[in-house]
Amino acid sequence: MEKPKVRLYVDQPLGAGQAVALGAEAANYLFNVMRLGKGAGVALFNGRDGEWRAEVAEAGKRQGIAICQAQTAPQVMPPDLWLMFAPVKKERTAFIVEKAVELGVARLVPVATRHMNSERWRGDKQTAHAIEAAEQCGATFVPEVGDLQPLDRVLAGWPEGRVLYWADESLAQGSSMPAALVAGPAAILIGPEGGFSDEEKTRLRALPFVRPLSLGPRILRAETAALAAVVMWQTAVGDWR
Amino acid sequence: MEKPKVRLYVDQPLGAGQAVALGAEAANYLFNVMRLGKGAGVALFNGRDGEWRAEVAEAGKRQGIAICQAQTAPQVMPPDLWLMFAPVKKERTAFIVEKAVELGVARLVPVATRHMNSERWRGDKQTAHAIEAAEQCGATFVPEVGDLQPLDRVLAGWPEGRVLYWADESLAQGSSMPAALVAGPAAILIGPEGGFSDEEKTRLRALPFVRPLSLGPRILRAETAALAAVVMWQTAVGDWR
Repeated sequence: MEKPKVRLYVDQPLGAGQAVALGAEAANYLFNVMRLGKGAGVALFNGRDGEWRAEVAEAGKRQGIAICQAQTAPQVMPPDLWLMFAPVKKERTAFIVEKAVELGVARLVPVATRHMNSERWRGDKQTAHAIEAAEQCGATFVPEVGDLQPLDRVLAGWPEGRVLYWADESLAQGSSMPAALVAGPAAILIGPEGGFSDEEKTRLRALPFVRPLSLGPRILRAETAALAAVVMWQTAVGDWR
Repeated sequence: MEKPKVRLYVDQPLGAGQAVALGAEAANYLFNVMRLGKGAGVALFNGRDGEWRAEVAEAGKRQGIAICQAQTAPQVMPPDLWLMFAPVKKERTAFIVEKAVELGVARLVPVATRHMNSERWRGDKQTAHAIEAAEQCGATFVPEVGDLQPLDRVLAGWPEGRVLYWADESLAQGSSMPAALVAGPAAILIGPEGGFSDEEKTRLRALPFVRPLSLGPRILRAETAALAAVVMWQTAVGDWR
């Protein structure tokens, strides 16, 4: 059995013999763009049931049906890590989302900060980015993408037992000691290109669940900081160990 | 003294009182695009002498002169780390170069492999990318960008005492033990999107200076792998410690 060339996220249950309805978008992609027909193999995943090889049973113009045959990869859940960041420029935000999926993050939490570079946040578009990234990199999980919320509000409703690692730029100048990473539920907070405001910094420093994280002696762009922090966490206490 | 808004790489010596000749490209950028004039401040660096605040003394259409006043940042050299990679798609190669500058790499070594995604390598363009990245992220060093060379040839002339960490994709499936990172001169080798050929893998496994590096349980795109490997090395044995 050949490995399917197309890998598709579907929001439906997957299992042996399960029929999967393919909507207009999927049908267009599979049957028009990729020119697959009845009998063709396709890899499906839904973020819960692993990856399945399915065979196209019906290939219509606006819909189709695929039947699951065998599981080709187990479901791999990411560790309990959230990535919080202020939206940056369009391509760089898309980049953060794409890389977070590849590196293994459970949830993306966009936060509005004082000096943020963009106030636009299209959750549906970013979810589509996350799905596309998962389709391309072979991931079986798609992180939850939240709505844009004020940083203050997120901090005010912080869940007990979750450590917030704050990539504090002032650590690049060696002004204070960074925290060691510890196992357990965590979140990483990355500021906007303009950095956090003095008020935001004061608030963050005072919160008991916040720990500063040093990302080396150089100033990193927001998206680089996000990625670097996730790699550091994954290597130290995540599922890269 | 206000912090200059413009930061520029120049290939000339910098030091107290030093006059720096600005060529046509710099003059156009500073005086036409950024609309700076005589007396304006500009931050200059050359990869060797740190960052200097300079004042524009002459602002012509095709040339100009700036006089160095004071050093505003010390020269920060990266650790002795090379990043070797097979060129990927245009934007993703540019991304590898940009992020390598931010994260701190001494040298970029593009290598031609069997399954590489692109055979085009414009060293001058990639050097320009590296310079632009350094200008934007506040780095005082610009990594050397090599010409595209066959992987075989680079391996054949490998310098004594340098460890080559090979991001071997098969480690994502847990087939063998990854190496621990050790201090000292190092290089990271990232394969093309299509992976290494069997012949290349056999050769790499047999070389005494090659050590496999695991980048977690997920399949990463080439540019993500490059960045993640540099972060891991910097955190474990580089200047992020």
